[in-house]
Amino acid sequence: MSRFLIIAERIEGGRILQEDYDTHNTVPILQRARQELAAGAKYLDLTIGETDHPVELMQWGVELLQSHFEDVPLAFESGDLKAVEAALKVYNPRHGKAILNYADTHEHADFLDLAAETDSICICRCSRGLIPENNDERLAVCSELLEKALRLGMDTQDLLFNPVLQQTKAMQERQEETLEAITLISEMGLLTTGGISKVALGAPKPVRSVLCAAFSAMAMQCGLSSGILNPLDKKVMETVIAADMIKNNILYTDRILKNYLSDEENRFKTE
Amino acid sequence: MSRFLIIAERIEGGRILQEDYDTHNTVPILQRARQELAAGAKYLDLTIGETDHPVELMQWGVELLQSHFEDVPLAFESGDLKAVEAALKVYNPRHGKAILNYADTHEHADFLDLAAETDSICICRCSRGLIPENNDERLAVCSELLEKALRLGMDTQDLLFNPVLQQTKAMQERQEETLEAITLISEMGLLTTGGISKVALGAPKPVRSVLCAAFSAMAMQCGLSSGILNPLDKKVMETVIAADMIKNNILYTDRILKNYLSDEENRFKTE
Repeated sequence: MSRFLIIAERIEGGRILQEDYDTHNTVPILQRARQELAAGAKYLDLTIGETDHPVELMQWGVELLQSHFEDVPLAFESGDLKAVEAALKVYNPRHGKAILNYADTHEHADFLDLAAETDSICICRCSRGLIPENNDERLAVCSELLEKALRLGMDTQDLLFNPVLQQTKAMQERQEETLEAITLISEMGLLTTGGISKVALGAPKPVRSVLCAAFSAMAMQCGLSSGILNPLDKKVMETVIAADMIKNNILYTDRILKNYLSDEENRFKTE
Repeated sequence: MSRFLIIAERIEGGRILQEDYDTHNTVPILQRARQELAAGAKYLDLTIGETDHPVELMQWGVELLQSHFEDVPLAFESGDLKAVEAALKVYNPRHGKAILNYADTHEHADFLDLAAETDSICICRCSRGLIPENNDERLAVCSELLEKALRLGMDTQDLLFNPVLQQTKAMQERQEETLEAITLISEMGLLTTGGISKVALGAPKPVRSVLCAAFSAMAMQCGLSSGILNPLDKKVMETVIAADMIKNNILYTDRILKNYLSDEENRFKTE
């Protein structure tokens, strides 16, 4: 198995990109990107929210990030097809194909066509609505998107199926089925991803990391091959790295894990 | 599913019990037991090492712990059948049957008979030697012990099958099979347990918790129903609790998880 693919969730254009673009201040976005990459992110997920100039904003973000971080691979999260098309025009895939986040079977259907045209990776959202009803729905959408992608000539390795993760708080009885969806999709030989932070929605800040970390390990055991997550959350990152070692995806070394512990933990426990 | 059964590993007679017995100093053992129960342990695992008077030591330990902690349920870890028999004579099962840790198909075979005679729970070690070669061996031993237990009239709910967990460091390529063993035994409708700390053997102190926590979540996703672990390790405990919530074994509440975080984490993250 290859190692868990970490897509950093926090280059959020709604706020940070927009402000930086308006003011031509590149410090905050570059600092965030630098921290995420240092923490172990492979991809940066660039998202833009409501804006009057989505095309310019996306292109500006791509060029800014790729010029500062040696053509860092990027994921594009936007419902605006034109903006993503524009981003792809200036994107350099030297260190990885772009990831389009996301395609579905309705409003976002065209993103799969765009991925096929531009030789990009595409996240396939396995739901007909906001939240999938059950695994019948997830697997039906998964099959439809897979079939379309193959028809378009795409490679299955360029598809990341997202079973749509849900919050634990008040909906904990649904997590078993979500994890089962990851198992079922993985057993089809397909790659999977999901928004890990969703699992902790509604929970108070101090416990979010714990829920996300535990869920990550459980989902990786089910076969989850990628996660859109906050790499600055040390608890989540150390868990993902440990799970990758336990799954024999990366070589075990003491040093890698120690790097994720706080100074306090390292000091305290080596006494 | 019922919640994950936590058997606290650290009432180790080799040192703490023996010293206390010799000096009639009950402070350290009671303090350790109090901390473990407060941290969420259900059972305390009482182990005695090399000693000249195993029978007296075990009985003294049982009476001391059960008189101070309202008949707390205990597990007995000793290769000395006579000592465990003696412990069972003074054991009060009001809050849970005793757990015998462990029976196997060779030197420890008699422990299964003892469990059947005394209506105890028995941990069944699925290995012919120090470490099982592979899952064929694990499942063969599992079947032999299951068959014998049923012949002795035991209930399968009173058997905890231990696939024998192994260290990650230098043996990481074997963890996948170990986790698969948990899945296979669980799919037979049987309960499982294992020594969680084994997973981190050989690793430097600071990273042990991380490995144990990640492995616990992964193993629980495979069906692991119980663990012999250090409940004073907050990272392991918070992960086990979170996994129990994700598996819908216990009701999600913010408060339970917050209790396992350090003061520093709670302060930092609620800012």
